[in-house]
Amino acid sequence: MQTSRSSGSYVSHLECSRTGERVEHDRVHGLSASGAPLLVRYDLNRMKADLDRDLICSRTADMWMWRAFLPLDAETQPVSLGETMTPLIPAGGGIMIKDEGRLPTGSFKARGMAVAVSMARHFGKTELAVPTAGNAGAAAAAYGAAAGMNVNVFTPEDTPKVTVQEIVLHGADVYQVPGLIDTCGKIVRAITATETGWHDLSTLAEPYRLEGKKTMGLELAFQFGWSLPDVIYYPTGGGTGFIGMWKAFQELRHLGWIDGKLPRMVSVQTHGCNPIKLAFENGQDDVEEPFSPVTTVVPGVRVPKPLGGRLIIEVLRASEGHACAVSDDEVMRAQAQIAAQQGINLCPEGAACLAAHALDVAAGKTGPEETAIIFNTATGFKWPMPDVKPSAASRALVERYMGQIGR
Amino acid sequence: MQTSRSSGSYVSHLECSRTGERVEHDRVHGLSASGAPLLVRYDLNRMKADLDRDLICSRTADMWMWRAFLPLDAETQPVSLGETMTPLIPAGGGIMIKDEGRLPTGSFKARGMAVAVSMARHFGKTELAVPTAGNAGAAAAAYGAAAGMNVNVFTPEDTPKVTVQEIVLHGADVYQVPGLIDTCGKIVRAITATETGWHDLSTLAEPYRLEGKKTMGLELAFQFGWSLPDVIYYPTGGGTGFIGMWKAFQELRHLGWIDGKLPRMVSVQTHGCNPIKLAFENGQDDVEEPFSPVTTVVPGVRVPKPLGGRLIIEVLRASEGHACAVSDDEVMRAQAQIAAQQGINLCPEGAACLAAHALDVAAGKTGPEETAIIFNTATGFKWPMPDVKPSAASRALVERYMGQIGR
Repeated sequence: MQTSRSSGSYVSHLECSRTGERVEHDRVHGLSASGAPLLVRYDLNRMKADLDRDLICSRTADMWMWRAFLPLDAETQPVSLGETMTPLIPAGGGIMIKDEGRLPTGSFKARGMAVAVSMARHFGKTELAVPTAGNAGAAAAAYGAAAGMNVNVFTPEDTPKVTVQEIVLHGADVYQVPGLIDTCGKIVRAITATETGWHDLSTLAEPYRLEGKKTMGLELAFQFGWSLPDVIYYPTGGGTGFIGMWKAFQELRHLGWIDGKLPRMVSVQTHGCNPIKLAFENGQDDVEEPFSPVTTVVPGVRVPKPLGGRLIIEVLRASEGHACAVSDDEVMRAQAQIAAQQGINLCPEGAACLAAHALDVAAGKTGPEETAIIFNTATGFKWPMPDVKPSAASRALVERYMGQIGR
Repeated sequence: MQTSRSSGSYVSHLECSRTGERVEHDRVHGLSASGAPLLVRYDLNRMKADLDRDLICSRTADMWMWRAFLPLDAETQPVSLGETMTPLIPAGGGIMIKDEGRLPTGSFKARGMAVAVSMARHFGKTELAVPTAGNAGAAAAAYGAAAGMNVNVFTPEDTPKVTVQEIVLHGADVYQVPGLIDTCGKIVRAITATETGWHDLSTLAEPYRLEGKKTMGLELAFQFGWSLPDVIYYPTGGGTGFIGMWKAFQELRHLGWIDGKLPRMVSVQTHGCNPIKLAFENGQDDVEEPFSPVTTVVPGVRVPKPLGGRLIIEVLRASEGHACAVSDDEVMRAQAQIAAQQGINLCPEGAACLAAHALDVAAGKTGPEETAIIFNTATGFKWPMPDVKPSAASRALVERYMGQIGR
């Protein structure tokens, strides 16, 4: 068995999420032989013997405090842009907003890309390709720039302008695709199969973005003093973070660092693209058909058939969670309301979670006294804000005082 | 003497920055009787006796770990939106970027407003007014919303659209003024003198924004293990953070928490508005005339006559620092270059500091081996990015593969 003694990490092997087949972790892999995501497995017993939780907690509060839970070996320098621990902002009624907009490139995608790009560099890759609804492409572009790699980003034609501009700002080549992220993904798979050396960074089609996203779960455990909150609302496009957090909780439980009940995991989508909700409520084990037609404007949930559908549904069942869908109107109202009433600028995906929580409390699915984590997966600045016209009253007041101050 | 035993903070009094006159801190003040900024003074001897540096360092890494250095008494609940410690990102050649874009509302203004709005609420204020080049208004709007206050923001007509939208999003009333921030400031002073109860949040015209900004200096000392870096590049509009950091260093030195040489403080402006550089290099003690005409497009330095000019120049002299000016072209080039080469999305004010550092290294004013802090005062998302058109090559590649995947 390949142990971390030789690799310098605690990784023992990669494992097919469908068949359990083991593969070595010392080379590049995409999906497993059966076409399923590969999961990184660690020598948890040795971690349990080696790791000192208090020592880890005393480190600088960023993603790399969890280095022992990550696949980078001791010689692999992380590609880092300052992945600080994200805050929990109390927002009334048991709600805590986990604000992932504070990360590099303004989104949670930084976590996965920091690890995936570090590993790609470790394996000698120099040219990356990624399909994206926007934020993953921006993060790939930034981390690729930091690593001195070429990055090719495939994104739907209707991706928000700010994100496309951001991708180009970071020096990546952007390819606008007529279609959704699944079409982008097919193009990336076709290209990486033919163009020499392009490395496919599609989420769950390589094993390391999931590991980066896992740190969301590790942080939550730390921030709650190793006793987890009641329920987690997470916007589910590809679902990598959803799967990753649950993986983190299992690993922490094996180490004995947490005990008690784990949170109920709530997958949040919109009516205009809710394949997970449909599959879960129909008792299916995976998303069988792509959701169609996709009508939601919320970019992060425009994923008609997530590659990790089976894993997402497993987490919903194991955590006794559920799937929730809201309307785009409910998203926009929640976003406007919390900005005006509490000063918090959520992305639409975060606002969807807030709206879902309100529906669940009204329906009795979530208790009003329960501690509920709302994942705000990106900064509100990446989403167009309404245009502004000064009111007549404001213009009149300015005019009056301009006279008074002698201008 | 009013001590912290009665107030629950370590504040002893407020002091006129020009005459040294003492005033009590248990009521609302604007400028001193002589028209100068009031500085908050603490009972540093009692702090030295009471405070345990290691205990403070073990707290959650955010602004409130420094609560003993802030004016809030024990009963005053901070108005908080998650003011996490901002990261230092290594950017090659001794450069560390202090990324203040990670704070609420995406800028360093959150620090000052968190404290000023908390104190305004403590004093029973419910209606705020602030002149701003943009970011301070956005922060005032957000913290005002969080505190349940009405906020009136006076901003130049040419303030970047994203920031004006953000101010409105947070429910504030925005007043667009023909002129620069000094005209906005005059209107706010005229209004707060007449409209009953509006509280003037102009920087340095109230004593508490400076205290919030001071936490930048406290964080740096902590992050560098109580041995400060060689030189700090800071974009100087109003200069509150520049003055605040120096104040922090003095307080820390009094406590014996730092020793050795303090950093050289470099004030960075652009050729299109550099009143501090002109006054400092002419040997003046203050900015005497407003800089005119203001032609720079960098919003944060469009301050023709900062209220704290005297204090900024004192810091330049005391720290053996200097003032630097760069062109708008140099700013834009630095911004594009670091984004494409290192994956870091700076605001123009941060890019100005990076450009100034490069000029100083070339001129031998800063050693290439010296540790230099570049303050990135806001996220790059608040500044318009160049428009993007997909290249012909990218369109051709997408078309080719669309055929191949059967779409």
